[in-house]
Amino acid sequence: MNKVCIAVTMGDPAGIGPEIIIKSLASRQVLEACLPLIIGDRRVLEETARRMGKPFSLKSIQRMDRLEDLTEPALLYEASHLPMDQVHVGQPDPEWGPPALSYIRQAAQWALNGRVAAMVTCPISKEIIQRFQPSFTGHTEYLARLAKIRTFGMMLAGDRLKVSLATIHLSLKKALRVLNAQKIVQAVELTHETMTQGFGIKNPHIAVAGLNPHAGEQGAFGREEETMILPALKIVQGQGIRATGPYPPDTLFYWAAQGRYDAVVALYHDQGLIPLKLLHFENAVNITMGLPFIRTSVDHGTAFDIAGKGIAKPDSLTAAILMAASFAARKHPDGKRKMPALK
Amino acid sequence: MNKVCIAVTMGDPAGIGPEIIIKSLASRQVLEACLPLIIGDRRVLEETARRMGKPFSLKSIQRMDRLEDLTEPALLYEASHLPMDQVHVGQPDPEWGPPALSYIRQAAQWALNGRVAAMVTCPISKEIIQRFQPSFTGHTEYLARLAKIRTFGMMLAGDRLKVSLATIHLSLKKALRVLNAQKIVQAVELTHETMTQGFGIKNPHIAVAGLNPHAGEQGAFGREEETMILPALKIVQGQGIRATGPYPPDTLFYWAAQGRYDAVVALYHDQGLIPLKLLHFENAVNITMGLPFIRTSVDHGTAFDIAGKGIAKPDSLTAAILMAASFAARKHPDGKRKMPALK
Repeated sequence: MNKVCIAVTMGDPAGIGPEIIIKSLASRQVLEACLPLIIGDRRVLEETARRMGKPFSLKSIQRMDRLEDLTEPALLYEASHLPMDQVHVGQPDPEWGPPALSYIRQAAQWALNGRVAAMVTCPISKEIIQRFQPSFTGHTEYLARLAKIRTFGMMLAGDRLKVSLATIHLSLKKALRVLNAQKIVQAVELTHETMTQGFGIKNPHIAVAGLNPHAGEQGAFGREEETMILPALKIVQGQGIRATGPYPPDTLFYWAAQGRYDAVVALYHDQGLIPLKLLHFENAVNITMGLPFIRTSVDHGTAFDIAGKGIAKPDSLTAAILMAASFAARKHPDGKRKMPALK
Repeated sequence: MNKVCIAVTMGDPAGIGPEIIIKSLASRQVLEACLPLIIGDRRVLEETARRMGKPFSLKSIQRMDRLEDLTEPALLYEASHLPMDQVHVGQPDPEWGPPALSYIRQAAQWALNGRVAAMVTCPISKEIIQRFQPSFTGHTEYLARLAKIRTFGMMLAGDRLKVSLATIHLSLKKALRVLNAQKIVQAVELTHETMTQGFGIKNPHIAVAGLNPHAGEQGAFGREEETMILPALKIVQGQGIRATGPYPPDTLFYWAAQGRYDAVVALYHDQGLIPLKLLHFENAVNITMGLPFIRTSVDHGTAFDIAGKGIAKPDSLTAAILMAASFAARKHPDGKRKMPALK
């Protein structure tokens, strides 16, 4: 058995994570592409499967198991044992913050020491984690700290559009204040790395969006295109990266979706996420760029409002697992490190 | 003959205007919906038709003609007589600024005095018009001045998305500086008027976008949602307008395209135009809201780079004419003023 092993965290036990995991594991494509190792809670998953009228038969592994010896199509690591009489699906509960975070920590440790080839995360509630860990601002920053890296970024990817962001979760005013050439350079570099190493695209064409309407229209509507974006482009072009721009934002995403560019660097959250979600509302994958391991994530939240109703769509999780598996296979083409033992 | 008469300006003689007019006039749907009255230059149109291998046989009218007496499917008013040996299609020429503007002025005069039921404009080059009229900033502002109105706005409309803008052609930084509750109120009011009177939708649901990522996430990423957008919503709701929000921008346009809302008010140019052009790159219509007459426009420029090649698509112009005709028929349901005489 030489499939890449992908850790999948269960996310908030009361959210839609358990449900979409069970649905994704029913995908033949997922089981052919990798060996999923769910990190979560057996009883929560069993109860979820029971409610959905589905079988649940994941084999639990112990920390020291040699995965090479196993032939199961998917595995479970029981990182918590929650009292089921207290888990109310769809109801956010601060109690489930610590176990949700423990799934992530375990997956990251195994990803860091190479015992899994990649990690994929299901949604958590940031507010709930913050109750006991106020400094928590999200998966991405948490993983960056565990990995001791400071240069990282976020890409949202679907079939038609791949968008990375030069600034992320800031008010629009603050994003405009902190945006600078260095942030754009960094976003382009990380995007280039992800497009080449992850997606396997040689010499990818990366388009950088303008900041202003019509990309400033020769300075009539702002000068950041000249003072900030063009200098950033010169730097990355000097490194041999095929990055061009700045392009008028209102038409750039249309052309990117038509295949004119391999990826777009957007300068602020909504510039990139409005077009991305318009085309890929249900199947976008969130990729953390710059980590020393492969990490993808669903592009949606815990959806407490629909959790337990059986209607949550697994498309984004399935896409995230498949993308992680594809990145991992590309990273380990010799197969040698595809299936390392857990320790 | 009781079809509404729609004035269509030819736009820049060297741009794609003449070509898309000839293509649009070949549409049976257009000729069934209205009596198009092209305001432009006969020789430019004839030469364009000849190059395309199409017949051209528009009857020219004089200023005093009574249109009721005519049975032609489309008409021409010759507002200029350009020297054809000097008109080089695809080559911007400052010489053609004054005639291009004269087409607009004539159409607006007839629209203002009710002699045509609506006007539709083909693209001009702002830079060229500015050479002889430096204060010119675009069709919309020019028409507003002719009509002596100060409250106007822009909506871009396609089948799936209708988006109006609270701020338009400003740098993003300046848009954030000038945006206020009053501008949002005004945009919602104009949008409501256009949706009811133009599109004939009773009690339209108008969604107002947030300004910040996740609509501020309870103040974590900015407070404009609370300090500016909610107060604006209260005002318009007090007038009985069904406006709601502010919604997270990255998912709002998806839901609007799914039919959850009738129209979206976007707070800055690219917030609205990125999703609009992603879905309606070739067939969006630009509607000027707040004018005392109906005016629609193509949603693209002169496209000098492809003018004369025969490849320009008439979809946006055709949609603009059909929309103007539909608005006009709704405004004049009795037919009495559908076909007034030109004077």
